[in-house]
Amino acid sequence: MKPKIGIIPGDPSGIGPELIARLLNDKDLMNTADILLIGDRHVFESGQQIAGLVHELHVVDANKNEWQNKANSTNGFAWHEIMSIRSDQVKPAEVSEAGGKSVLQSLDLAMDFAQSGVIDAIMFAPFNKASLHMAGMSQDDELHYMAEYMGVRNYISELNTLDGMWTSRVTSHIALKDVAAMINEERICEAVDLINNTLKKSGMKRPKISVAAINPHAGDGGNFGREEIDIIAPAVQKMADKQMCVDGPWPSDTVFLKAVAGEIDAVVTMYHDQGQIALKLLGFDRGVTVQGGLPFPVATPAHGTAFDIAGQSNADVGATKAAFKVACNMVSDWR
Amino acid sequence: MKPKIGIIPGDPSGIGPELIARLLNDKDLMNTADILLIGDRHVFESGQQIAGLVHELHVVDANKNEWQNKANSTNGFAWHEIMSIRSDQVKPAEVSEAGGKSVLQSLDLAMDFAQSGVIDAIMFAPFNKASLHMAGMSQDDELHYMAEYMGVRNYISELNTLDGMWTSRVTSHIALKDVAAMINEERICEAVDLINNTLKKSGMKRPKISVAAINPHAGDGGNFGREEIDIIAPAVQKMADKQMCVDGPWPSDTVFLKAVAGEIDAVVTMYHDQGQIALKLLGFDRGVTVQGGLPFPVATPAHGTAFDIAGQSNADVGATKAAFKVACNMVSDWR
Repeated sequence: MKPKIGIIPGDPSGIGPELIARLLNDKDLMNTADILLIGDRHVFESGQQIAGLVHELHVVDANKNEWQNKANSTNGFAWHEIMSIRSDQVKPAEVSEAGGKSVLQSLDLAMDFAQSGVIDAIMFAPFNKASLHMAGMSQDDELHYMAEYMGVRNYISELNTLDGMWTSRVTSHIALKDVAAMINEERICEAVDLINNTLKKSGMKRPKISVAAINPHAGDGGNFGREEIDIIAPAVQKMADKQMCVDGPWPSDTVFLKAVAGEIDAVVTMYHDQGQIALKLLGFDRGVTVQGGLPFPVATPAHGTAFDIAGQSNADVGATKAAFKVACNMVSDWR
Repeated sequence: MKPKIGIIPGDPSGIGPELIARLLNDKDLMNTADILLIGDRHVFESGQQIAGLVHELHVVDANKNEWQNKANSTNGFAWHEIMSIRSDQVKPAEVSEAGGKSVLQSLDLAMDFAQSGVIDAIMFAPFNKASLHMAGMSQDDELHYMAEYMGVRNYISELNTLDGMWTSRVTSHIALKDVAAMINEERICEAVDLINNTLKKSGMKRPKISVAAINPHAGDGGNFGREEIDIIAPAVQKMADKQMCVDGPWPSDTVFLKAVAGEIDAVVTMYHDQGQIALKLLGFDRGVTVQGGLPFPVATPAHGTAFDIAGQSNADVGATKAAFKVACNMVSDWR
């Protein structure tokens, strides 16, 4: 059975609609799933126009099971129409409340569809955080928005993946001075558990996970900080005792070399830049972000709305294709 | 006038002696300087034996000016003999007090020679910190040892360079939780000033320097920390007002992309792993460490004594050659 993937075009002012048009043009890839497009006709069409591509959109009511009959027919894609934004409200390459509202409406509906089993997973083209905040999103990011929308209470975390290497982080958008106080055994265990489960759901039988230290040289035996001894090592031991393949803490300036060498599948970092410095240098704009801890797979390209190149017909669809594949892989091993 | 470079073989138990033997074998490179070897005969000879190379050592008294007459003669190198360790005290691939003492004796003498003008700069093969501590070095690292030996009171900092990209850091071997409290305008200005001066002394007319932020997304306008607004930006402005080519603060997960693209010459980081994660991923074992803030140039390969491959005749001399070139370049623009 093919995975049923809901696709929303992201912020209409950015490169999202163009990326979706380019994604749909990869017929071999598209045939690996049943695709349900969710969004406004003019948004999808403007993306096709920018990309110089034409895809037929077959209107379906996704609430009725027969939508899959129209998925991936010879000449087009199943499309659940919404009217979330007027075409004259779309401001190319601009932050706007209307753009943010359009995203939230399509995202809400996609979540409803995923929760009711209409689709198995969501792949979304880039959102613009500033537009989402203008549109009333009070949460820090879309992951927390989605979790709250669905009443998710378990641990959630953004996961990043690039060329088969995964990362998650114990703390994220907080000041560096507050990081150490937020590191505790429970959070580290939750982060390890989440990435272990997510990777198993992505088809890995026994993911190899390394946990980064927080201090330089992993604290040098306690000389520059004791978190490795008092907190991180005990947390790693606890998860290893649960038969997970996890080790650490490793100095953060060498753990990524192990990942690049393919010795491990995932790195759990203690703070935002610890992982992001490495990922961006390794070309993370080609990478994928997975919203970890939600009741179904949600994947998106790691890059943003790229207002600087919006409408210019040269957006690179690589990360979007990668996100689509990650979503498909996660569905097949999810249950 | 050729630069006069003093060379010491580093820890006799590591790959240092082999590296020096390989370095001396690059005759074209060696001819760019007058070289004074400082060390024990059996240490240099064991390196030659491991490397399968033979270099004649011409005994000189470096305290007399005529040593330069014997530098780089057709068949050998000027050599100031010391007896710092007996050959039966050298424990290959082991931490030892005797190895550390040998290093300190040769380093002290090299500093004496540099201070009195016998040589212009020091290039040393890798030391082993644990051996140095066993030998009585009380300071955190060799930079602080050298500074104290010479009574240096100005700001000092290790600088790292790789493929023309330089970094320095405002804080170094301290716990991450203590970093934010150590960041202040004076230290940042000192770090910028040091790297600016060092790069000018390395031949750059007007080095382009970017300063990293401390918080994720450079604090996101104060949402995740205010150090960028309250401390780093004013420090950058202060140095820019002194006609330095400096900008920032930049998010630390993007500033290295600018460096890799060649848009800037140097990055001033706020903490150890911020720079080291990037440098190690970019291949910093090929890089060079410069001891910044001393009264003369001191350079060394960035990698360590590599006990795991000591004596096996496969040590890579690339970083040692790079360190030698950096030392020579710095001499020519030092005054």
